[in-house]
Amino acid sequence: MSVSTSRLLPHTGDFQWAGVVPTAYKDSGDFQDVTRRVFVGDQEDLTAFHVRYFEVAPGGFTTLERHQHAHCVVGLRGHGEVVLNCQTHQMGFADVLYVAPWESHQLRNPHPAEPFGFLCIVDAVRDRPQSVTCD
Amino acid sequence: MSVSTSRLLPHTGDFQWAGVVPTAYKDSGDFQDVTRRVFVGDQEDLTAFHVRYFEVAPGGFTTLERHQHAHCVVGLRGHGEVVLNCQTHQMGFADVLYVAPWESHQLRNPHPAEPFGFLCIVDAVRDRPQSVTCD
Repeated sequence: MSVSTSRLLPHTGDFQWAGVVPTAYKDSGDFQDVTRRVFVGDQEDLTAFHVRYFEVAPGGFTTLERHQHAHCVVGLRGHGEVVLNCQTHQMGFADVLYVAPWESHQLRNPHPAEPFGFLCIVDAVRDRPQSVTCD
Repeated sequence: MSVSTSRLLPHTGDFQWAGVVPTAYKDSGDFQDVTRRVFVGDQEDLTAFHVRYFEVAPGGFTTLERHQHAHCVVGLRGHGEVVLNCQTHQMGFADVLYVAPWESHQLRNPHPAEPFGFLCIVDAVRDRPQSVTCD
């Protein structure tokens, strides 16, 4: 197995990073206008976690879902909201969210002015999310 | 075992968070003017990782150390530098650093104007750091 060495991913401004290419958020599901960047976890990284940056364009939203693994979200860019157990909370810069196992959650950006970007830190070994509804 | 439920830790401005108390960085070692805040990992959290926020005051520095576990640093506040394998690199907002196993590292703040604050994400189960020198 090859093993990655240390690396510095410089933020080049406007929430772009040298050497980090935005990819599709997911292959399929009920979401809109979300991109994914992987900072830790897409190489031969030896951490028990992955660190990703998701960006939700104005009007966009992630899948409303639940799963066994807990995870953590930290706001970096703009403002948005989290629908947590079907209740809505505002989120912005440096707000920290811990989502416990099986609690439903969705990140949304209702603001027209700016993308809502956040770090999402998850276990490297994790179960697949299940889509749910709040109605 | 009790299990923590989801929680939102709002950033109340100026890099303070509601319900999060800054603590000492370490009990002992060669460091100066560093505080630690734990966002994930100090409760009955079920993640394979811990998320902490460290802040290095002007003139301060973390321990120059190495360890088996890899980890990730993301700049949040101000500017500073990382000494990685005895080479110095600048770090600022949203710069992402992956530190591979056994690579020596130290975070420093040579800037008089503002603290240098960063997220530090580590495995929940990890070995104890060893102090090293670059001379």
